[in-house]
Amino acid sequence: MLEGTAHLTDVRLAREALPGLGARMLLHAGPPIGWPRMCGPLRGAVIGACLFEGWAATAEEAAALAASGALAFAPCHHHEAVGPMAGVISPSMAVFVVENRRFGSRAHATLNEGLGRVLRMGAYDPSVIERLRWLNRELAPLLAETLRRSGPLDLKSLIAQALTMGDEVHNRSKAATALLARVLAPHIAVSRGDVARALTFLADTDHFFLNLSMAAAKATLDAAHGIPGSTLVTALARNGTDFGIRVSGTGPTWFTAPAPQVKGLYFPGYGPEDANPDLGDSAITETAGLGAFALAAAPAIVQFVGGTARLAVETTELMYEITVGEHGAFKIPALDFRGTPIGIDVRKVVETGITPAIDTGIAHREPGVGQIGAGLAWAPLECFTQALDAVAHAQGVA
Amino acid sequence: MLEGTAHLTDVRLAREALPGLGARMLLHAGPPIGWPRMCGPLRGAVIGACLFEGWAATAEEAAALAASGALAFAPCHHHEAVGPMAGVISPSMAVFVVENRRFGSRAHATLNEGLGRVLRMGAYDPSVIERLRWLNRELAPLLAETLRRSGPLDLKSLIAQALTMGDEVHNRSKAATALLARVLAPHIAVSRGDVARALTFLADTDHFFLNLSMAAAKATLDAAHGIPGSTLVTALARNGTDFGIRVSGTGPTWFTAPAPQVKGLYFPGYGPEDANPDLGDSAITETAGLGAFALAAAPAIVQFVGGTARLAVETTELMYEITVGEHGAFKIPALDFRGTPIGIDVRKVVETGITPAIDTGIAHREPGVGQIGAGLAWAPLECFTQALDAVAHAQGVA
Repeated sequence: MLEGTAHLTDVRLAREALPGLGARMLLHAGPPIGWPRMCGPLRGAVIGACLFEGWAATAEEAAALAASGALAFAPCHHHEAVGPMAGVISPSMAVFVVENRRFGSRAHATLNEGLGRVLRMGAYDPSVIERLRWLNRELAPLLAETLRRSGPLDLKSLIAQALTMGDEVHNRSKAATALLARVLAPHIAVSRGDVARALTFLADTDHFFLNLSMAAAKATLDAAHGIPGSTLVTALARNGTDFGIRVSGTGPTWFTAPAPQVKGLYFPGYGPEDANPDLGDSAITETAGLGAFALAAAPAIVQFVGGTARLAVETTELMYEITVGEHGAFKIPALDFRGTPIGIDVRKVVETGITPAIDTGIAHREPGVGQIGAGLAWAPLECFTQALDAVAHAQGVA
Repeated sequence: MLEGTAHLTDVRLAREALPGLGARMLLHAGPPIGWPRMCGPLRGAVIGACLFEGWAATAEEAAALAASGALAFAPCHHHEAVGPMAGVISPSMAVFVVENRRFGSRAHATLNEGLGRVLRMGAYDPSVIERLRWLNRELAPLLAETLRRSGPLDLKSLIAQALTMGDEVHNRSKAATALLARVLAPHIAVSRGDVARALTFLADTDHFFLNLSMAAAKATLDAAHGIPGSTLVTALARNGTDFGIRVSGTGPTWFTAPAPQVKGLYFPGYGPEDANPDLGDSAITETAGLGAFALAAAPAIVQFVGGTARLAVETTELMYEITVGEHGAFKIPALDFRGTPIGIDVRKVVETGITPAIDTGIAHREPGVGQIGAGLAWAPLECFTQALDAVAHAQGVA
């Protein structure tokens, strides 16, 4: 977890890059779930993906197709991928390729769409589909060429810099995105395509780096997965219905509990009664010592998720109670460059009753609406007690 | 001071943009000074400017010319300009044009050269002159075209954002530079010239924004200058020999005292015995509520200037003691978005004995060497007691 590396090396189509992705398969965030139990925003994203792929001409057709059993659904996490919020990845979507060269693992994520009415929040109107087409058919090839010119991009270094610039690279990636745009701009400028539009999109999309921080976290954590007897958490993920965790020593098993509500700030006109429960693979950043675990590095985030600057520091301080290490590269200036808390130990969580904090977006509970706020969520303790029992059982402990 | 605006509108040659700049005139940082009393790095920058202009073929010729009385010297501040460190501006140098449209004032500054062996630190070897030629003959016209495409760029907004991203825009401008590069990149990419080299320079030059934050501060503060009876400071500036201040109610007068030493961290191989005293117009940022006054926004800066994150907060807190207001746009997340301290009152300085803090670079005392460190300096109290006497005298107070 500490020594893993993360280089952005390519942008490819999901159907070519993701192992085991079927032709009529859709990936989603969180632990496994079928259409009947999917929450509204995940259903909305599934509908949008069917429209984007041309599998359906209308939302009604798409919903009927999804309900018919003709589509396969699987977690992104089962196919070397992660997705923010609904996290839907379809075969024709382009994905970033992030490599952990130190340990030979690899992770993928789609290109961030920006804020507002976007697929990952469950929106699927024509503007959403049109933006997806541009991202996947124009921006993606341009960025692939850019990366061939620039060579692999060190995401771990960009994240470390961004933590000294007010980001926690989950709900605030403004500095990381600006650094990314600045370092890629010389190579974008001489690539083929509408470079001005590409650079304008990077200039306008403060969350663009989020999908990259997620893939970097996933590539790092996957290398720590599958160590017999280990009680370290290698994934926190939510599908909007269930919250699930995976633990290094228990292989592919998900330990799940109902997804919690997010406590936060709402956009004008919305409130808690409109909110879907916690959603998305983005808690992979917290699992890697980022996001809410690095909240002390990002005091300005309280404008977005609520609370005071002191809450940001206290949240990070609390996470040291349930982790076994401090990051050697990800440091928090306001704590005199203390490393971020990393290595969530299910034993510590169960012993203290403190569960991981996650700072996250809030999607509307109905399909088709989109983001309505942002805030803090807390992982359910039940996932960790189940996991501890399972590790103990596997180790032959009573 | 609070309501002033700052838009980057153009890049022009100093001889065309600066009012009253003579054909054989060199501007310098700080209060007025002639060649005999100039410190080493200022002499080095004068030599470099003579080489750049083609007024001399060797450093010896340049020094002889400067000593001969054939060149006129004047403070940048007397010609609507500011310059970091030595602050030398010669007629063929390109300058940013920054306009305070709310109050009709205007300020100028050269393009930042980057770190290391640079003119503003007193270096003048061929690599320094070659970089100056590129900046002034290639980058400057490209940026001028860029600004015609983008329209005026709101520097006040960029500074406000950068303060939430770990900058204080004096000794740390990494976020502001990245935001600037990100917003200009779409327009640079379609302008004439070597756009890849220009974008690479912006990607490599973390201090690029410094000269812009200085010009923005100067344009804002000049609008507050010349108010009868006002005891507010409108400029702090150092020429490396003298520290000088100007006060709103006392017009063009400079109140001076010996420039203090800077307490800080040195690059390997250098120490306090190599250091020139405090130097540069860059303390205009502190005068405008930025720099050391906003140090609490930039905890990572202690890696560069020494101390702990607590020192950063304490320095800002101390500056509230000598200022009359808090900035409405420049806010510090770690202090729960309290506005930065602004409006240095000579009465408060004299009453408390607390003088303005300045976080600044350290130049080698000899001409031709360059930067050797960075740290914190404190303005000399004597400037403020003189100023208070002068205001009192002008107001007929005994």
